[in-house]
Amino acid sequence: MVQKICIIGAGSSGLTAIKCCLDENLHPTCFESSDDIGGLWRFKTKVCSIKKHPDFATTGQWDVVTECDGKQEVGIFDGILVCSGHHTFPHLPLHTFPGIDKFKGKYLHSRDYKYPQEFADKRIIVIGIGNSGGDLAVELSSVAKQVYLSTRRGAWVVNRVADEGFPLDVVLYSRYKLLLKQYFTTEMLNSWAEKKMNRRFNHENFGLKPQHRILSQHPTINDDLPNRIISGKVLVKPNIKEFTERDVIFDDGTMEKNIDVVFFATGYSFSFPFFEDPDLNAEKNHISLYKFVFPPHLEKTTVAFIGLIQPIGAIMPISELQSRWATRVFKGLCKLPSSKSMTKEMLITKDEMARRYVESPRHTIQVDFMEYMDEIASQFGAKPSLLRFWITDPKLASEIFFGPCTPYQYRLTGPGNWLEARNAILTQRERIIKPTKTRICTQEMNESKSPMKFILKLAAIFAVLAAAYFAYI
Amino acid sequence: MVQKICIIGAGSSGLTAIKCCLDENLHPTCFESSDDIGGLWRFKTKVCSIKKHPDFATTGQWDVVTECDGKQEVGIFDGILVCSGHHTFPHLPLHTFPGIDKFKGKYLHSRDYKYPQEFADKRIIVIGIGNSGGDLAVELSSVAKQVYLSTRRGAWVVNRVADEGFPLDVVLYSRYKLLLKQYFTTEMLNSWAEKKMNRRFNHENFGLKPQHRILSQHPTINDDLPNRIISGKVLVKPNIKEFTERDVIFDDGTMEKNIDVVFFATGYSFSFPFFEDPDLNAEKNHISLYKFVFPPHLEKTTVAFIGLIQPIGAIMPISELQSRWATRVFKGLCKLPSSKSMTKEMLITKDEMARRYVESPRHTIQVDFMEYMDEIASQFGAKPSLLRFWITDPKLASEIFFGPCTPYQYRLTGPGNWLEARNAILTQRERIIKPTKTRICTQEMNESKSPMKFILKLAAIFAVLAAAYFAYI
Repeated sequence: MVQKICIIGAGSSGLTAIKCCLDENLHPTCFESSDDIGGLWRFKTKVCSIKKHPDFATTGQWDVVTECDGKQEVGIFDGILVCSGHHTFPHLPLHTFPGIDKFKGKYLHSRDYKYPQEFADKRIIVIGIGNSGGDLAVELSSVAKQVYLSTRRGAWVVNRVADEGFPLDVVLYSRYKLLLKQYFTTEMLNSWAEKKMNRRFNHENFGLKPQHRILSQHPTINDDLPNRIISGKVLVKPNIKEFTERDVIFDDGTMEKNIDVVFFATGYSFSFPFFEDPDLNAEKNHISLYKFVFPPHLEKTTVAFIGLIQPIGAIMPISELQSRWATRVFKGLCKLPSSKSMTKEMLITKDEMARRYVESPRHTIQVDFMEYMDEIASQFGAKPSLLRFWITDPKLASEIFFGPCTPYQYRLTGPGNWLEARNAILTQRERIIKPTKTRICTQEMNESKSPMKFILKLAAIFAVLAAAYFAYI
Repeated sequence: MVQKICIIGAGSSGLTAIKCCLDENLHPTCFESSDDIGGLWRFKTKVCSIKKHPDFATTGQWDVVTECDGKQEVGIFDGILVCSGHHTFPHLPLHTFPGIDKFKGKYLHSRDYKYPQEFADKRIIVIGIGNSGGDLAVELSSVAKQVYLSTRRGAWVVNRVADEGFPLDVVLYSRYKLLLKQYFTTEMLNSWAEKKMNRRFNHENFGLKPQHRILSQHPTINDDLPNRIISGKVLVKPNIKEFTERDVIFDDGTMEKNIDVVFFATGYSFSFPFFEDPDLNAEKNHISLYKFVFPPHLEKTTVAFIGLIQPIGAIMPISELQSRWATRVFKGLCKLPSSKSMTKEMLITKDEMARRYVESPRHTIQVDFMEYMDEIASQFGAKPSLLRFWITDPKLASEIFFGPCTPYQYRLTGPGNWLEARNAILTQRERIIKPTKTRICTQEMNESKSPMKFILKLAAIFAVLAAAYFAYI
């Protein structure tokens, strides 16, 4: 029987995985190479190598060699949860920047940045406009002499504080919107989203407009960037053509002199060098995994990758669902399809991703937040049946349908269900606004809670239900 | 003949006033008490007293006593431009905060703040949510342990980076919108503006919603505050009830312990103690000035107050128009109404302001940006005649009408007109976006420049013109 689980990494996915193992009465051992954040069998322990135990074909066990304080240890585990994430190794493509070897200023990867102070009064170039690049440019701009943000492609920049001040994922993800989405083409969704983003600030006027459409790239989320650009603290520049000793020449022929620091916010790559099996390693950020979790080719599926996805939304709820699924697969309570079917589905997913996204090492593990959560949850029976709730508990159904899609929804039914989940869903909106509502606005003006609004809402529900019905038959 | 002008203050209004004097062949002498920023007859000179010259009734001259390096000097001037502004004396209402004398932490006025570093890791309360309070809370939050923003009334918070990323005043002020505005009631404008603000973030959920309507208060402009609140770095709190040695108790009964620093962002008061004439002094931020510029009761109007207004927009273009008007009045090229008419108009303005705004020392000098500029410009013939331009130069008229209302418009006709003004207006939009368009977005997607759009715009112009015509007859 599967008992001992090796968890690699004690980050947001590793901690979640530990909890899910304990929930399933498994014994997790977590290895974390750094000396910080969470983890159970705590710290400064590096995983050196993992190979199949000699009788793997029957037991599915793994031999794991770890190193702590220079001392190696070997352990036998019944299952492996790889939770080291995809922000592991800095991607530093120096060879694509001619003259960088001559450059006399300092250059470093965004990963090596901690505090802005040491960059006070410097002339800085940040290369790359992903989330790291955007955040870095904004933070440095408060102390630097000048920040230049160099981008080859440009980016669509999305607000974290979304409509009405709600967090972006609360606004974006509801089952109601998911249903509506199906009635629109990608072109329509792109146009709608781009118009919305341009209403906040015109991406062309701000030098940020990319050639690709908004849904073809993992978005850059940044609330402060437009203000920093309009105040001149951050100047957007094209790709760098060449470095000289102290200056930088851009693709458009412009030059910026006396650059002190260059940050490469050029992302990360992931790989798993500790696996002896080359199929479990990763090359150029590509790894073959069924639903981004299970390698399809093993005799026994006793290894799973947790959190190796890039959603537009939080990693934790997804890691939790993946861990719940993985532990049940390890225990044999949940069966996977045949190796052939898994491989076939993987190829389809890969092909869809290639067609949708701009080609980039960033875009090998993209998932749609809600769709993916539903997909994983339905593998082990935790996806809520909305139709059933509309009949048995319409109040709950209404909040599941119209409200934000929070992880409680996957604790209503199936293994690991939680009695408090219903109450948690019905009170979630209160709790979302509670932390910011630290001053009560007395004598609030009478908001019009007209019966008309209620009737309209009801009509909308029926219209959507009817549409769903006709789409289904 | 008026020749020598004394200018008090070398800030944004003083510098503008100097230029306007030179344009009118007057000899300005500028006194600035601090040692920084602009000014012609350089620095650290304090104006001690100003009184009417013995033959004021015929010459309109003033005796001005100044002090520099402890040495007093007396000068006779033909005219005075008071440009010391309304952010002169910190308003520190300590008596309304019981227990502040026992408080062992540090407290200071927002004016005494320079850099955030010395407040690192402190627990800080900022009192007041005007523009100083908002900016202070945001800037301190990046280094402080916790910032509490205490507000009695709350506030509507407006974005500086407005629609499509244009500056707020560019979006807000056009003659086209000014015309439309007349067809709506204040209630309608309030609702529209409040909805727009709440779409950005729900002011009630963020603890900021005031009891008054959005147009009843000088707005707080802040782009970063919602993000700081949602991330918990700034917590909004109600008014302070009481201080103890280290703690602060709020009106809602909550308490925050171990407060290190309290900032009073409680605004400023203005007064002009150097004037011997009590009518030229100011009490509780009230001073009797015709159109916020001229004292109505003098035998000779050879003193004017420049920039003593609070617009939602830039001070400089208004100070410039006021200075142009004042210098022409000083030279006798422009006549003021009788003392009686001026006093009557002043009372009407005062009454309108009292009805519109929340009672506060902040709200004694509020003006509507465009309306006020037009009003001042028409005093000396610099207001552009839109009707004439529609006939003689429709291209220009269209930009004056639909485009942002920039100060060039007041240089098209009348005294001080400028030949380049037309060209400046027609190219202003290019120049507005030029500073942010530092990366050219190549292969721009073909925007639909359909003829339909042009026809619709044309129809709109005609509709508006027709409406204006019927409103006029």
